[in-house]
Amino acid sequence: MENQNSKIKIAFIGYGYWGPNLARNFFQLPEVEISYICDQNHEKLAHLNRIYPAAKLATDYQEVLDDPETKAVCIATPLSTHFKIAKAALLAQKDVLIEKPMVENSKEAKELIDLAKEKGRILMVDHTFIYSGAVQKIKDLLDKDELGKLYYYDSERINLGLIRSDANVISDLAVHDLSIIDYLFSQKPLAVSALSFNHISQNQSETASINIRHENDFISFVRVSWLSPLKIRKTIIGASKKMVLYNDVESDEKIRIYDKGIDVNPSQVTPFAPLYRSGDIVIPKIDQTETLKKAAQHFVDCVNLRKQPLSNGEAGLRVAKLLEAISESVKEKGREILIS
Amino acid sequence: MENQNSKIKIAFIGYGYWGPNLARNFFQLPEVEISYICDQNHEKLAHLNRIYPAAKLATDYQEVLDDPETKAVCIATPLSTHFKIAKAALLAQKDVLIEKPMVENSKEAKELIDLAKEKGRILMVDHTFIYSGAVQKIKDLLDKDELGKLYYYDSERINLGLIRSDANVISDLAVHDLSIIDYLFSQKPLAVSALSFNHISQNQSETASINIRHENDFISFVRVSWLSPLKIRKTIIGASKKMVLYNDVESDEKIRIYDKGIDVNPSQVTPFAPLYRSGDIVIPKIDQTETLKKAAQHFVDCVNLRKQPLSNGEAGLRVAKLLEAISESVKEKGREILIS
Amino acid sequence: MENQNSKIKIAFIGYGYWGPNLARNFFQLPEVEISYICDQNHEKLAHLNRIYPAAKLATDYQEVLDDPETKAVCIATPLSTHFKIAKAALLAQKDVLIEKPMVENSKEAKELIDLAKEKGRILMVDHTFIYSGAVQKIKDLLDKDELGKLYYYDSERINLGLIRSDANVISDLAVHDLSIIDYLFSQKPLAVSALSFNHISQNQSETASINIRHENDFISFVRVSWLSPLKIRKTIIGASKKMVLYNDVESDEKIRIYDKGIDVNPSQVTPFAPLYRSGDIVIPKIDQTETLKKAAQHFVDCVNLRKQPLSNGEAGLRVAKLLEAISESVKEKGREILIS
Amino acid sequence: MENQNSKIKIAFIGYGYWGPNLARNFFQLPEVEISYICDQNHEKLAHLNRIYPAAKLATDYQEVLDDPETKAVCIATPLSTHFKIAKAALLAQKDVLIEKPMVENSKEAKELIDLAKEKGRILMVDHTFIYSGAVQKIKDLLDKDELGKLYYYDSERINLGLIRSDANVISDLAVHDLSIIDYLFSQKPLAVSALSFNHISQNQSETASINIRHENDFISFVRVSWLSPLKIRKTIIGASKKMVLYNDVESDEKIRIYDKGIDVNPSQVTPFAPLYRSGDIVIPKIDQTETLKKAAQHFVDCVNLRKQPLSNGEAGLRVAKLLEAISESVKEKGREILIS
Repeated sequence: MENQNSKIKIAFIGYGYWGPNLARNFFQLPEVEISYICDQNHEKLAHLNRIYPAAKLATDYQEVLDDPETKAVCIATPLSTHFKIAKAALLAQKDVLIEKPMVENSKEAKELIDLAKEKGRILMVDHTFIYSGAVQKIKDLLDKDELGKLYYYDSERINLGLIRSDANVISDLAVHDLSIIDYLFSQKPLAVSALSFNHISQNQSETASINIRHENDFISFVRVSWLSPLKIRKTIIGASKKMVLYNDVESDEKIRIYDKGIDVNPSQVTPFAPLYRSGDIVIPKIDQTETLKKAAQHFVDCVNLRKQPLSNGEAGLRVAKLLEAISESVKEKGREILIS
Repeated sequence: MENQNSKIKIAFIGYGYWGPNLARNFFQLPEVEISYICDQNHEKLAHLNRIYPAAKLATDYQEVLDDPETKAVCIATPLSTHFKIAKAALLAQKDVLIEKPMVENSKEAKELIDLAKEKGRILMVDHTFIYSGAVQKIKDLLDKDELGKLYYYDSERINLGLIRSDANVISDLAVHDLSIIDYLFSQKPLAVSALSFNHISQNQSETASINIRHENDFISFVRVSWLSPLKIRKTIIGASKKMVLYNDVESDEKIRIYDKGIDVNPSQVTPFAPLYRSGDIVIPKIDQTETLKKAAQHFVDCVNLRKQPLSNGEAGLRVAKLLEAISESVKEKGREILIS
Repeated sequence: MENQNSKIKIAFIGYGYWGPNLARNFFQLPEVEISYICDQNHEKLAHLNRIYPAAKLATDYQEVLDDPETKAVCIATPLSTHFKIAKAALLAQKDVLIEKPMVENSKEAKELIDLAKEKGRILMVDHTFIYSGAVQKIKDLLDKDELGKLYYYDSERINLGLIRSDANVISDLAVHDLSIIDYLFSQKPLAVSALSFNHISQNQSETASINIRHENDFISFVRVSWLSPLKIRKTIIGASKKMVLYNDVESDEKIRIYDKGIDVNPSQVTPFAPLYRSGDIVIPKIDQTETLKKAAQHFVDCVNLRKQPLSNGEAGLRVAKLLEAISESVKEKGREILIS
Repeated sequence: MENQNSKIKIAFIGYGYWGPNLARNFFQLPEVEISYICDQNHEKLAHLNRIYPAAKLATDYQEVLDDPETKAVCIATPLSTHFKIAKAALLAQKDVLIEKPMVENSKEAKELIDLAKEKGRILMVDHTFIYSGAVQKIKDLLDKDELGKLYYYDSERINLGLIRSDANVISDLAVHDLSIIDYLFSQKPLAVSALSFNHISQNQSETASINIRHENDFISFVRVSWLSPLKIRKTIIGASKKMVLYNDVESDEKIRIYDKGIDVNPSQVTPFAPLYRSGDIVIPKIDQTETLKKAAQHFVDCVNLRKQPLSNGEAGLRVAKLLEAISESVKEKGREILIS
């Protein structure tokens, strides 16, 4: 029914864990046509013609980039190959969506940002969570200053598995929090103190705790683990007027807004007499659209309207800088590392 | 009905937040008579004759120690006065129970231990939680080696309040975890990395995160806060065979034992292919007796039988050493501090 | 400090399961003095002088009623004795609080109401729950018409025990719901259909389900059991604008107000196209005072101010009528019985 | 790869609410080929060639039945058409799976059973839940006599919507429980007492409560509603040795086995002194395969092996008899109706 010529042709490079989710969500968008699905491992491509009969299949990403019809590519390959493939894609004049984390270090991030600018291409990182109804709701609360002075972001993201040999729990799980923190808070991060541990894997950490000191006494704290019997996705935002619980394992009640806090009357500092406030709790209705579908739609909108994505290359760069500082602090057993 | 002469006469020094709880629980023990209740603030003593008609009331602890009938004292005064009062009590030949943390530093702890030995007196710290049905159940599991190789102790102990001007969240809340860790695990603590923060109070931290490295790759992690909209008391123990959740805000289901884990076949390290195990969960029935009553009974038993308490002066000393290292790491913004 | 003469002297007759709770809560009120505690079984009175040194102890309730100083009595004896003792108390010019259910049938209820009127005495039934912060909050919502047209009251009140040989689960547990329904809703009950079952006891039902048809298409449904592995205290109030969950096993979050519902546009009845509304959920802060203490205070206020209690004899009579109809329906295996 | 000729060709008649779920699950089975999808409303068939390119689309079910290649049909049309279409399908020598409830009355059920026998065809009702990991686990417990003497089945199945004009809450939601009860328990149902109510719909009940009396003092109780702000899917099975909670809204912990109960020592009936047992709770690991996929596989296995399904026509007949009795009791406002 739609005019096939008006559809954006998008290729998918990397069809391991995340690639199928990306393809499935883009496939649901009426303005998208999947032109190519590409994976080095041709076994991953078997049966795909049953699900995506119109897509060509390839094992060499250069073949994909050489296709003049393909306007954009989604890269979901192992982290170590992100930079090389994204660079080639930008050089081939494709708009690019890269799975998080964008690249391995800030130098690569800067190079991609510059190249995208030079070529006039869209560069987006798949910081999926910032497009979720829950994070968007928190962003609203912050924009309307409903929480007051911000104290902390405290996140616990733990479960059993998926331990990998090619990534650690920080680049896999903690990056979600780093991208959320980057999106939500204007308080610049100043320094990082982080620890990580491994018990199962030979050389990839499975558990980590990360503290970030920000401007204005704001702190953020991220605890991640692949070695927990419980699945927890819980973030608390502490602030002076209201506090927020973001519980992502809940299906319907992801956000709770607490009218709770501690007030100190300036005249009561000595003797110290804090007042505890405890009022209503509100569980707001939030948008239930699948988050990845919203991120896919955002990329398509940016491609169509030639506008900067919310999670553009600069966001990817800021997260890369945090990851560099975290990595250094981990090596020095928790010593505080300033963020450049 | 009971022979009043055979009862142990116990005095209570300090009747602020915890003192009333101690007195109430000791009062329920048939072998105890409350001889004195003492607090500097005589308003705290008003109406006490209605509840404890047989107890004498005093504002000067020396009056209590001078009473030859009083055989033991429970000290629940501010931390800075513990050492002085406990020393005077031991010198007056009293058995002594001290509210946690025992003293401000390891030097004081050692002096009390030596004095108790010299005088042949019982010295017990009120590490209440180790007497709970839940911690006793975990101890059983460990003693029977049901968990396998231990990976971590991960505890979150947060709520709103009670911010104090005379104590910080570490000496108040984290000490519970330090005493539980000390009791449960034989893996010697080697080093500490800790951070703390204050947003409300002028100079007392309200939020802290503490990592302890132990022998044999065991780690412990303690997160405490007085500035959370939620009350959480949750500890996860990670291990190779079974894992444990200890959720102390549950009334009936405090312990869950998960038959979950990750196994690595030695022949499958390359390529890395961990196996995820996920079996039954067991919620064992645990002893529901009020924990403080059990601790009180333990002190009375030690007094009667002249035996060492589970939480004796040595336990208090080990916790004091941890607190010293934590305090030093906090000052150095998370730098790892070796434990002496 | 208070003038002892100005205190109301109250006697407690029946010191089994509920009597101690009543006495403890009245004892906390500064305007009350406990004059007598009376129980046929003198073992129940042992040690009471340690808790209530000023109270006289008695095994014969007539001795209590003969005391001219005693102005009011609280009756917490077995149901079959309520009428006799309450009648004697009213004849002795005492104000009377009776444990629920007030009496065994509506004839007795009427006689007590008439006698109380004749003697100018206060007659209150201990419908404790209507004094709770949670029920008061619901009453507020109804009074302000925040729920819209009322559809149903649906309550589940189940747990393991306490099976008794002298009462069934209806007179023990379901009466709580009947008194709440009577207090909250103005829709007159018209008919009852009820079933009950016993599996453990010889002749007392342990499980029952009760449906009440009210005016204006309002229905109420009460499910009670003493034979459940779970403790549930859950009531849902269905209505056109907002719906309420009252979960009494929660300590802090007993009430949830759902902005949920189903709307039918009159023009959309054919084809039938209901619209589902699903908005925010609010968990209001409610008064946390112990409910029985509030009920005790209400009785004392009524005695002092000579005013009608919320749960007066008439409320007791209405509940008695419901119990009579329920009993008849149970005998006829669920046949609907009209309420007189 | 598979030999197309060896695949069973199955047609789907009715593609409204449930039909798409059936088709999707059968499509995942390698031994199945979808030959036809049929719905009177041709709009429902739009875009289906994108998902099921090999399926023919039809608006007339007779066209489907005339196809000699199609060996089996799945019927998910409105209840009032089940009998007519199933009869035509059996006459056309097709194996038949019918969405629950099978038919409108026991007469129709018997006719289909006889016809299937005569034609040597498989007749299965889609009593989906009996194929779930949870119900299978309970069946195991019963088969191994781990629960002891059975007391009751108590189920609550409530949520907001989906109110329909062509079915009531009993034939839609309560049928799930009736089919589970029929599958799990050998105690023959003897009589039914049921009530139902409607507040939104003109003539279809949205709320119902059903009590069934079985042999051996076993009772079952089913509460269903489309007019609740909460989604609850909770069943408790009471018994003498162990009790079971089946909570179907939990994703991982659907079954809990409680070592709880009440024992009466025969020598303690007078005075009545029940003993409350409260031991461990076990949350067994259960099979997480999608239930409808397992039901689909069962149908295919029965077709291939010419064996009787667990939920055969006889099961459909027994449920139809219960529905008839329920309907009669509802009309008589809860009067007990014997089951023929």
